Parts: sequence; structure tokens; C-alpha cells
Amino acid sequence: MQGEDGRKRAVIEQVKPEIDGGRFAIKRTVGETVVVEANVFTDGHDAVSCVLRYRREDMSSWSEVPMHPLDGDRWQGKFKVTAVGRYYYTLIAWVDHFKSWRQELTRRIQPEDIVLQLQVGAQWLEAASGRAEGEASQRLRNQAKRLEGTDELSEKLTTALEEETSLLMAHYPDRRFATCYDKELIVVVDRPRARFSAWYEMFPRACATQASQHGDFKSCEARLPYIATMGFDVLYLPPIHPIGRINRKGRNNTLIAGPEDPGSPWAIGAKEGGHKSIHPQLGTLEDFRRFVAKAREFGIEVALDIAFQCAPDHPYIKAHPEWFRWRPDNTVQYAENPPKKYEDIYPFYFETDQWQPLWEELKSVFLFWIEQGVHIFRVDNPHTKPFLFWEWLIAEVKKVQPDALFLSEAFTRPNVMYRLAKLGFTQSYNYFPWRNTKQELTEYFTELTQTEVREYFRPNLWPNTPDILTEYLQFGGRPAFMIRLVLAATLGASYGIYGPAYELMENMPRSSGSEEYLNSEKYQLRLWDIGRDDSLKDFIAQVNQIRRSHLALQFDGNLHFYPVDNEQIICYGKWAANLADIILVVVNLDVHYTQSGWVELPLETLGIEPHLPYQVHDLLSDTHYLWHGPRNYVELNPALIPAHIFRLQCRVRTEQDFDSFM
Amino acid sequence: MQGEDGRKRAVIEQVKPEIDGGRFAIKRTVGETVVVEANVFTDGHDAVSCVLRYRREDMSSWSEVPMHPLDGDRWQGKFKVTAVGRYYYTLIAWVDHFKSWRQELTRRIQPEDIVLQLQVGAQWLEAASGRAEGEASQRLRNQAKRLEGTDELSEKLTTALEEETSLLMAHYPDRRFATCYDKELIVVVDRPRARFSAWYEMFPRACATQASQHGDFKSCEARLPYIATMGFDVLYLPPIHPIGRINRKGRNNTLIAGPEDPGSPWAIGAKEGGHKSIHPQLGTLEDFRRFVAKAREFGIEVALDIAFQCAPDHPYIKAHPEWFRWRPDNTVQYAENPPKKYEDIYPFYFETDQWQPLWEELKSVFLFWIEQGVHIFRVDNPHTKPFLFWEWLIAEVKKVQPDALFLSEAFTRPNVMYRLAKLGFTQSYNYFPWRNTKQELTEYFTELTQTEVREYFRPNLWPNTPDILTEYLQFGGRPAFMIRLVLAATLGASYGIYGPAYELMENMPRSSGSEEYLNSEKYQLRLWDIGRDDSLKDFIAQVNQIRRSHLALQFDGNLHFYPVDNEQIICYGKWAANLADIILVVVNLDVHYTQSGWVELPLETLGIEPHLPYQVHDLLSDTHYLWHGPRNYVELNPALIPAHIFRLQCRVRTEQDFDSFM
Repeated sequence: MQGEDGRKRAVIEQVKPEIDGGRFAIKRTVGETVVVEANVFTDGHDAVSCVLRYRREDMSSWSEVPMHPLDGDRWQGKFKVTAVGRYYYTLIAWVDHFKSWRQELTRRIQPEDIVLQLQVGAQWLEAASGRAEGEASQRLRNQAKRLEGTDELSEKLTTALEEETSLLMAHYPDRRFATCYDKELIVVVDRPRARFSAWYEMFPRACATQASQHGDFKSCEARLPYIATMGFDVLYLPPIHPIGRINRKGRNNTLIAGPEDPGSPWAIGAKEGGHKSIHPQLGTLEDFRRFVAKAREFGIEVALDIAFQCAPDHPYIKAHPEWFRWRPDNTVQYAENPPKKYEDIYPFYFETDQWQPLWEELKSVFLFWIEQGVHIFRVDNPHTKPFLFWEWLIAEVKKVQPDALFLSEAFTRPNVMYRLAKLGFTQSYNYFPWRNTKQELTEYFTELTQTEVREYFRPNLWPNTPDILTEYLQFGGRPAFMIRLVLAATLGASYGIYGPAYELMENMPRSSGSEEYLNSEKYQLRLWDIGRDDSLKDFIAQVNQIRRSHLALQFDGNLHFYPVDNEQIICYGKWAANLADIILVVVNLDVHYTQSGWVELPLETLGIEPHLPYQVHDLLSDTHYLWHGPRNYVELNPALIPAHIFRLQCRVRTEQDFDSFM
Repeated sequence: MQGEDGRKRAVIEQVKPEIDGGRFAIKRTVGETVVVEANVFTDGHDAVSCVLRYRREDMSSWSEVPMHPLDGDRWQGKFKVTAVGRYYYTLIAWVDHFKSWRQELTRRIQPEDIVLQLQVGAQWLEAASGRAEGEASQRLRNQAKRLEGTDELSEKLTTALEEETSLLMAHYPDRRFATCYDKELIVVVDRPRARFSAWYEMFPRACATQASQHGDFKSCEARLPYIATMGFDVLYLPPIHPIGRINRKGRNNTLIAGPEDPGSPWAIGAKEGGHKSIHPQLGTLEDFRRFVAKAREFGIEVALDIAFQCAPDHPYIKAHPEWFRWRPDNTVQYAENPPKKYEDIYPFYFETDQWQPLWEELKSVFLFWIEQGVHIFRVDNPHTKPFLFWEWLIAEVKKVQPDALFLSEAFTRPNVMYRLAKLGFTQSYNYFPWRNTKQELTEYFTELTQTEVREYFRPNLWPNTPDILTEYLQFGGRPAFMIRLVLAATLGASYGIYGPAYELMENMPRSSGSEEYLNSEKYQLRLWDIGRDDSLKDFIAQVNQIRRSHLALQFDGNLHFYPVDNEQIICYGKWAANLADIILVVVNLDVHYTQSGWVELPLETLGIEPHLPYQVHDLLSDTHYLWHGPRNYVELNPALIPAHIFRLQCRVRTEQDFDSFM
């Protein structure tokens, strides 16, 4: 009988959330709620009770909250996470004889049955009195005596069934034969920016104000008010390290660089230094720290790109040849991400005997930049380094800096992207750039936000990157840039653009069928006229302002799609704060033509009285509409504004519980 | 770095089948195949290899079979289970540098690239040669030398890419950094009867041939040819033990028994003995053993009912009062299964301090009957005893008698029924009696046969039991009995009827709205005229004969529903043996009217040429039809035969793999 007590009759199974049998953590941010569900039951007809236990990693004792029954053996409980770090949660369930007895008592009709049942109940109360202390113990004993004493039967019944008795008994349950769930599940809690963030990617060298001039951190500083006014709170810089000279790429990714060509910032390392050095033309480490501090004054956090790879003249190559894989001809195979070739880049050799020193060195790169004030990292191609490495690295870095956030830039197969998210990446690039039709968007975002994926994969939505100029943007003109911005900013709580290319609607590909930019900044200096009349900067600022003002847009899991009888129009809602904030987004996906249709809303879910008119307020055009009933007409002209971002005015339903979205 | 080698780059996840994270076993029968799938991948662009390992519990070393890639990181492998008992399976995956290198080589175009690649390849071959022995080692070394030697480049390429080299390399992989899946998953393998069985339930006391006479094992023997001719292979007897006299039930479950009333066989135990004794009127233990042996001669296995409960005069009550829960008035609360009351039955008290002796005693009951030759047990209300008890008991009994089969009679909530199946019950009663419409049947049997449930829950389909006379049977007349028989016998590989009530179409309920039989055999002797002209015995014999002749009907997981444009007609197919055996069942669910409709078949899946006619042979009416194309007409008159059981004649597709159904 294996030492286990055979009287542990309660069963706990099908616990959710639980990722891969508890192998991986779920993710939350400070202030969010963890809602836990499980099947809890026992043999026979006895009642069960169940508690949810949780603790922060630095607490030795558990907190407990009761679980409540839903339908069909399903129970639910919840707790709030209030600090960055790890939390653990698990369950305990037991057969609750007092609860069974109470239910049983209400079924008894014969007086002699009732008398007998009351005697049994007195035993349960007496036993609980033994487990309780002080006044509670005394009260339980008194109740027990009353059930056996001289009161009228009806009085005894009242005593037995009164709420107070149940509450008292619930405080002193008999858990001798309780079943403990056999896993302690993990929540990784990050600061709120892990969940809600607006990113702006910018090449520091492109911040100059004159052609052919190389931007530096000082010119970047001058760009901060512009970025802050648009409403971004994370400024992500491509690598800022010395750029290799061997095999340096020329303009448009050509294999031969001219003497003036600055090279790709991702070809990291030269005689001036490697991953812990600053490219001399950008300034000094001191300049960088000043820039980071200045950005913070504007409410902007600087994020760095961590690309673990080396130009052929990176100091590592000579100092640590054992970290690279040498072929019989004493060369290293350059990096590839088929069909892309990176002749200017060597990959690390993660199967080296010296993998441990290599891991430590790479960890030290993160720690170095954390010391300079950087707490957000965009990680370049994490899927080309071992999974175990990232799991270790992220945990290690968070030990030093629990606030650190990691954005995974893995555009690869879903299983690989999800695995990286599970093992610790805070946010993840995803397929958003290539999801354009209503069906594509609906299916993909249903997968991301309405399945288990939402527990560990936080999408960061980028309509463009220096590597991704989609066909939709190439051919869609200004409407396309507006549409994709609204989608990114409202489908996702985190999104980003690569600017100023985005707000200036740069749309020329290097060649037909390519998603690379013509004259890409990756290989040359560009001068941007950020003051151009047609810039989308004001529109972007407006959208970001709406995001900041509406809690509903600051979560991913609260996304719901609604039907529209036009395939070119997509409609979805998000809400927060117990329906106090409801946002409804309607977007015309057709860049060419005005489209109209009938939107269909689930009024009851949204707390709207079906027979009364209700107001929808378009926050983009500041227009008010009076709607009535579930079906209402919309019409959107892409030449003007291709989207509505409605705020819905409606009664708050107090019953509904939206805790998981704060 | 936690001691783990950071160079273990392969990932194994989402393994299927895996029940509740490996907590429970999957089920198979001897000769079946276990198909295992998993996501297997690594970082970057390297190729991976993966093997499936399996072993019987009594073998110390693993067998290995290669896994093969399907789509999107999914891999599949399979193995056959050939003996009763437990098997274990797990996976090992690794980055396969030779495979990566080979793929890479085919992409190379420049001769200097190819030369270099061949040198690299020679290193891999050389290393494998070191892992190999004897001739294989020599051949690998020779191949390595040829890649570096003086052959023409094209010859070297041929050497590098030839199949033989790959096969040789696959035999000597470099698994230094292989990832082992962290679980060993379990298969419980039973004999084939666990999967395919036809049960007949019969009260031995009703086998007499004269009114008011009490049947015994001798009269049961006389009934064996009748049962065998109908084609049943399991004969299940309600409890055969002495029946209590205290609180004995009278006819139709009345509270007062007359002196002649035999009482319910489930009220087990009297002064003549308890769970290990024979009710004197049935005969002796010797008679019983003889009867079991005789049945075996007819190809019939006798199954006993194990009901762990006691009549108030069961010897246990006095011998082991500690196994019962005594109330303050020194009585024991009788058993209930709300709303049913069993005044003649006391339940065991599984929370007794003396639970271990109680468990041992109950185990000894199984072992006692195993010694008498019984290997199949129908367990009465297992859901009112602790789950841990059953898990322990079934494992313990199987240690002594690996052939033992256990049918769970738990009509309760799905989670509870599934839990009992997961923890060891071989077969399970289920909701079939109350699934009558096409939609109900389709939904329920899709859940049972097309989801993970099929891995551990083997349904046994009973259209009636002594406790269940459904409304469908009460009011549907002869067609209802034929319809439900065909459904039970063809939807499920295991099914059973309670006879002779079933074949004699007994349909009177005790009262309106009740599912209890009027004059139930549970409480009185009944005399059945099994020779009646209108008996369904020949129809049943025919259906059982079809089941025996067609492998397709001997599995559950191969069930597929097909559309019919009439809600009263249900159609489904089953196949086995690589489509060599295809059965198509069409049933008119309407007991009153002839129904017709168009059946729609997936011709390609069934291996039928879409442009050629094909023959369907109705095995019930022995009629042949020539069908053409996917849609064909059917018409069924319930007054004649309300079903077709077609055999489809078609070409066998060799590509399709139906191994999992043998």
C-alpha cells in the first residue's frame, strides 16, 4: 500500500493553468489575478472542500483561499500577484464530512432520522472544537451541546443549519486525509511593462540632421521629445557596438563595402571592442548612460539588441577560438538563416567543450548593460542558440535584475517560438506582419489570446521591422500604414514600429518580391525628414494616447471578435475593470475602397440593455453615434480614417468578474 | 548550470499518448500497436533524429525503433505489444550532425565549398567509425578515406550521399548530447477479450424450467448451449452469495419480504456465509466450478459480480464491526445511491482506522474467485469506494492473475467514470442506454472513440440491465430492441444484454417514468419461455456471428460517422486490416416509420474508385446492392429489419496504415 494513507479520498486533476504538466511557468504582471481551475471530487456522494495555496518564492509559508464549485466537478479559486518574481501555487482537497452531513440533514424528513443526524452532527462539531482554540473552540462545543440538548427539534435544526456554524466549521476543517496536489506550479510575475508597452525601433546612426552625417547618442537625445510625443515608452536600438570590418556588407547587402559604408550593426565586434563596447561614432559609454537617463526623463526606457554573434574581427575570435567551430581549412562557416546569408557574421559554437565559460561570458554581456541602466533586451534570433542556454540565462539575469524584460525575435516555426516563450522570454515577435485578412487575423489572435498560449506567450506586434516591409505596406499606401498601426496597437497590448520608416510610410522594397527595404538602414546612413507634412506621427500619437487612457487596451486575453457581414471589415472588443471600460475596434482592411457593413454585438455580455439605445464614441474622429440593438451600421473610407476605436457607454454589470484583467 | 550538459540541444514535447502527464497508463490488447507522436526539434537549422524506446516490465533493456518526421516538428513511431502485462515507452532525440551535413551538402554548388564539406563529412564518418565495431567500423573508415582521397568530386559526392552511408551512420549515431524524455510512460496490455467481448447477463436462479422453482448451477449448465448459440462469450452472473434475511426486500423492491421471497442477490451475506460463499439454493462451490468449466467448453467465460457491501446479517458485521460506521444509536446507515435506497445493504466504512485489513480482505475475495476459475469481474458501484483502493486492488490482483479483467459499473459523472478507467478498470459501463438520437450517439461516440478518452476508457455497451429499462425500449416494441442491439453490437467492440429479458423484449416498467422492470428478477423468481417464437435470439446470433467474422467490428477507435440527409438514419463505418475489412452500418432510429435517405461516403478514404461502381453486401438480409459515387440511397422499414450491416467490397490501399487496429 506504498505508505500512502488509503483514506485520502479526494481527487484533484485537470488543473489549469498548468503548462506541459507544470514543466513551465505561467506569466502575469504585478496586480494581475491568477484564476485556477481544477476537477475536484471524491468517491460516493460526500461533499468535498478545496483550497488554493500560493506563496511568493521568498515566503516560506503558504497563503490559502477557498476554491468554489462551478459546474460538473469543476472548482475555481484565484489570487492576486503583487510583486515581481516567482510565485508558486498548488491545491489541497478533502472530503468534508460536515458539509456532507449538512446537505444530508436537509434531506431528512422523519423526526427520528433528524434526531439521529443531529447527534452525528454534534460529533463533528465536537471534533472541530478540538481542532480550534480559544473562543472558537468554545463556541463549537456550545453548538454541539445545543444539538444534543433540550432545545426543540426545530431550534436544533436552525442551529445545525445556520451560516455561522458552517463558517466556523470551514475554519477548522478535518484535513487528516486531505489530498495535496502533487505539483507546485509556477507564476513568473513581471512589472506591468511586460504586458503593456509601445516600442519604437530606431537606428541611432540615423538621428543626424544632415545627410551623410553619422548620428550619435547626442543626436538621439534630441530625438527623444519627438518619440515621447508620439507616445512610445520603449526605445529599442539595434546593436550599438563596434562594427566589424572583415567581410563588411555594402549598401543593399552587397558583398563589398565601400570605404564610407558603415556596415551592419549586427556584424558585432572589431578592434575597438565587442559586445560590451560602444561603436566609437555613436559616442562613449558615458554618452550612452546619459542618453538612457535622459530617455527616462521622457518616460522612455531604452532597450538594447542582444545579438550573440561575431564579426570575423571580433576580439573573441582570437581570445576564444574554442568558442567557434573551425573547419578543416581553418575557417568558420558564416551565419545563415536560409535563405539569408550573413557573410559578415560568425555564429558561436554552442557544442564546444568550453560551453560553460561561453555561457558565463554571454551572461556577463547582459549584466554589463544592466549596469549601464538597460533593463529591456530585444534578443536577436534566440532560436539559433540552445533552449537550455536561454532558460538558464534568463533565470540567472533575473536573479540579478528581476525587472529585466526579454523580447524574443524568433521568426520561425510555432513550436520553437512557443518553446522560447515558455522557457522565459517575456514577449515575442510573432506572425502578425503576415496576417492581413479578417480570417487570418481572427484565427491567429484567437490562438494567441483564447487558448493556453496566452498563459506564456505575450505577443509584441510589429507591422514593420528593418527586415520586414510587407507587401501590404509596399502596395497599400497611407491607408495600409494607418490600418496596420491601428491593428497592432489595439489587437496587442504590446506593439512596436520601426521608425521613422513607418511614420514616413517608407514602402520601397529592395527588389520585387523582397521584404527588404531599398537602401536599408542596416547597411547605410539615412536622413529622415521627420517633420514632413504627411507624417503619421500625429495619428500614432493619438492612437497611443487612446491606449494609455483605456485599460481595456492594456491586456491581450480580453480580446473578442464580433461578426461583420463584410469580409473587408474586422471588428473586435476588449474590456476591463468590470466593464467600466469597453473598447470596440472596427477596421476597414481594404486600402482602396470605402466599405460598409453591419456589426453584430453580444449586448448581454457587454452589459447593454437590448431595448435601449446606447452611445458609441469614436475616439479617433471624436464622433458620437447612437446605436440600438445588436446590429449596427458602419462605413469606413480608407482615404480618411480607415478605423473606428469606439468607447462604449453602458451600465456596469457587477456580477461579471473580470479580475484576471485587473 | 545544475549539472545538466548544456549541449543537450534537442527538445521532446507534446508526447502522445500521455495521460495526465504520464500519471496513468494507456490501454492496449495483445497484438495491437502503440503509435507514439511527439514534437521533436532543436535550435537553429540542424537536423534531429529520434528513437522510440519500449520494454516489457520484465525486460531490463529497451528496444528501439526510429521515429519518422510528419509535418511541422511532429514525429511518429510505433511498436507492437505482444504479451499481457505492462510496457514502458519513452523517447530519445539528438541533433544529428551527419544528417544536417548531408542536407547541407546537397545545397552546396561551388566546388571549393563541396570539397570543404566533404572534408567535414569525412570527420563525421571517422568519428562514427570509432563508435562502430568490426566490419561496420572498417566500412565507415573506408568511406571517410574516399571522401578525402583521390576520387573525382562527383564520385565523392555519390559516396557521401549514397543511402548505404546514411544507413550505416544511422546505426552509429553520436548520442553524447542526446535528450532523454523525462518520463517513462506506461501501457497496460490485456488479452484480446478486454477489447472485444459480447456479454450476457443472467440470474442463475432464473434458469429453472418450472415456475417457482429456484434455478441452480445445474440448470445454468443446461442454458449454456442457448447462450453459446446466440454467440456470447462472457456470461455474467449477479452475486451468487448467500442473501441476507434482515431487511430483505420483497417483490418490486417493497420493504417487507414474504417468506418465499428470495431477496436481492446484492444484499450479500447471511449466516451461510458472505462474499466467498455460494447461496445454498444455487448449489455448492464444486457445482460452481463445474459450471465454470462447462461454460469454457462452450467458449464462454463466466464473469462474477463483485459488490462490496453487506446485508445486515453478513458475517463481517459481527466479525469486523470496525469495518462499518456506527451511529450514536449503534446502527449503520444503509446504502444509498440517491434517489435509490438500499435498506437491505450496509456499506463498508473506508475511513476506518482498520482500512488496511479491510483492503486485504476485499482483495482476498477476488483471489478466492480467481482460484475458482473466474477471471472476469463486473464491479458493482466502484465509484462509491475510494479511488486509491481500486488502483491498488486492480494492480494487486493482476500481479496474481495478469489475465483478470474488470468491468466498472459506475453510472455517474463523466470525470468519475473516466478516473476509474484511468486507474485500472478494463472496461466501463457508460451512457449508451440514454443516447438515442443521431446527434446524441454521434457526439458521445465521437468523444469516446476520437479523443484521448479512447486511450484508457473501453466502453461496454448495454442497451438494458436489470436496473435499466429505458423509455426507448419500453415504448419502441420489437424494432427498438433490434435497433438498440445493432447499435450496441456495432458501435462498440464490447457490448452486453441482460437476458432473457432482452431477447424476449420484456418492456413493462415498475411504474410510469421508472426505468425499473416490473416484477424485477432482482427481487423474485421469474420463469422465461426462451423458446418463444418471437424471440430475438436468432437475430442476436446473426449479429454476433457478423461481429466474429469481421475484424472491423472488434475495435472501438476505428469508428467514423458519415452524413445522411435524414435525422432518423445514422450511418457509420469501421475498418481494419488495411481496408481489407470494411463494415458500414446504417440504422433507422425511428421505431415507427420507414425512413429513407442518401448516405454520403468518403470514397477516397475507403479506397473506392470514385468513377467505378462498388458492391455493398448487407450481411443481415444477405442482399447485394451496386452503389456508385459518394451518395447512395437507403430505405429501412422498422417492421422488417431496421438496419443494414454492409460489407464493402473494394480495393485495398497499401499506402494507408491501419496498424493501430492490427
